[in-house]
Amino acid sequence: MSAAKPFEPVMTAAEVENFVMAVFPQSDIYRWFAKDVRPGEISVGMRISDQDLRPGGTISGPTMFALADVTAYLLILAHIGEVALAVTTSLTINFLNKPEPGDLVAHGRLIKLGKRLAVCEVHIEPESGGPMVAQATATYSIPPRG
Amino acid sequence: MSAAKPFEPVMTAAEVENFVMAVFPQSDIYRWFAKDVRPGEISVGMRISDQDLRPGGTISGPTMFALADVTAYLLILAHIGEVALAVTTSLTINFLNKPEPGDLVAHGRLIKLGKRLAVCEVHIEPESGGPMVAQATATYSIPPRG
Amino acid sequence: MSAAKPFEPVMTAAEVENFVMAVFPQSDIYRWFAKDVRPGEISVGMRISDQDLRPGGTISGPTMFALADVTAYLLILAHIGEVALAVTTSLTINFLNKPEPGDLVAHGRLIKLGKRLAVCEVHIEPESGGPMVAQATATYSIPPRG
Amino acid sequence: MSAAKPFEPVMTAAEVENFVMAVFPQSDIYRWFAKDVRPGEISVGMRISDQDLRPGGTISGPTMFALADVTAYLLILAHIGEVALAVTTSLTINFLNKPEPGDLVAHGRLIKLGKRLAVCEVHIEPESGGPMVAQATATYSIPPRG
Repeated sequence: MSAAKPFEPVMTAAEVENFVMAVFPQSDIYRWFAKDVRPGEISVGMRISDQDLRPGGTISGPTMFALADVTAYLLILAHIGEVALAVTTSLTINFLNKPEPGDLVAHGRLIKLGKRLAVCEVHIEPESGGPMVAQATATYSIPPRG
Repeated sequence: MSAAKPFEPVMTAAEVENFVMAVFPQSDIYRWFAKDVRPGEISVGMRISDQDLRPGGTISGPTMFALADVTAYLLILAHIGEVALAVTTSLTINFLNKPEPGDLVAHGRLIKLGKRLAVCEVHIEPESGGPMVAQATATYSIPPRG
Repeated sequence: MSAAKPFEPVMTAAEVENFVMAVFPQSDIYRWFAKDVRPGEISVGMRISDQDLRPGGTISGPTMFALADVTAYLLILAHIGEVALAVTTSLTINFLNKPEPGDLVAHGRLIKLGKRLAVCEVHIEPESGGPMVAQATATYSIPPRG
Repeated sequence: MSAAKPFEPVMTAAEVENFVMAVFPQSDIYRWFAKDVRPGEISVGMRISDQDLRPGGTISGPTMFALADVTAYLLILAHIGEVALAVTTSLTINFLNKPEPGDLVAHGRLIKLGKRLAVCEVHIEPESGGPMVAQATATYSIPPRG
């Protein structure tokens, strides 16, 4: 059996961010930014505002879901190139510790990049440090490439 | 072995909606409303606005996640009473068919209501009819009741 | 938007059972049997033996996983016909209540049957009655049909 | 906000293996063995036999589920000590690549170790090398410790 083939990115953090901002202008409302693309991995930051908060000052579940989802999407794009049509087929998110109000950073890791499906793990942490606040596994369907 | 005990609601749709609006005023931004509470079940509607849409007119993943999460939360509240501190511990969502722009309705069903954990299934459909657009399973942690 | 199209089975319980026993003779070790196929639904029984038990007499997780997986597989086959190559891509199982030793029955429900992916919910209960012991959601990849 | 506290094991691979073999003698049928315990991590091997195989020589889903589940259980035990009563509450498994017949190794990583819940990621690979064949996320309920 051959060794596992390493994942090789084909876009930089700036390229993937610019591409998504151009094709999904509405995604701006999530205030995310691609920080860094590495082989099989990505880091994505998110600025948290008042509308993301819940009573007690914690960050809402939909905000963390949105960060996990955009992180997986950017990670896949960075490794397959400009294919806007990849769509989430499923996402499992575990909420681990209540986040304090403050910016978040998500670290995404490619687990599989097949012809039809891609699978990623995402870990979300406070930008300021501290324990992981959410963990997600996302599956994306990749359109046939002609 | 005894028969399965049926679930009995302790709050009406109006009561659960008023309670959540009072303790989570921010949740208003999701524009949901409890339609109906039945034993072990709930129906929750959501009005879709421009900010929920994505290119091509489809509804965003975070919007459907938010509807699944609020539906599970309202369903549990309706069966355990006014306990604001139940928190989502995990949520798995499957995106099934691209929704057309338009209001959504979610049907939640209690699968387990234990002392520490509750598990629900949620089915999301277009208000106007048509195939299911998302299916979710949510697990909530229930605080000790004194 | 048109109404949701109902699912129509193309094989009976006996046909789907015979087909799987022929192409997967090893699956016999799980001692399952198809009880009933209905539009979009199936019921599958499983005989529990000593090797399925754990200390205290409860039924093992892998046994319940195997029942959930075979139920989803039989349900999909019954609706797409004799296609042995459908493969599980993901399965989420929630363990709800410790089962007493005794036979189990699983009720599967089709949520989506697309060209490439099928999604099912499975509820596992004691054959003798009592509360649900496990709930699963399974996703299958369907091979291209020529 | 303080830095994330590292996980510290309290049992060695041999200790955790001996403890589980003593309290769950039936688990022997899965033919697993703890290879290595590190802070927040474990590696567990599994010998594959004919009964684990499916047509075409691939390894069955229930076998991979059993390996993921025992890996998460051993990982948690190694970090909380001899508490036989931790129980799986949910497990999500993604099947990534068809495994060739041959022994497997699972790498488990603690994501959260709380008072009531623990969450782990598990990656399953062929012992002989090659791409990951399955990825799982498991949640365990931890009994109150007196």
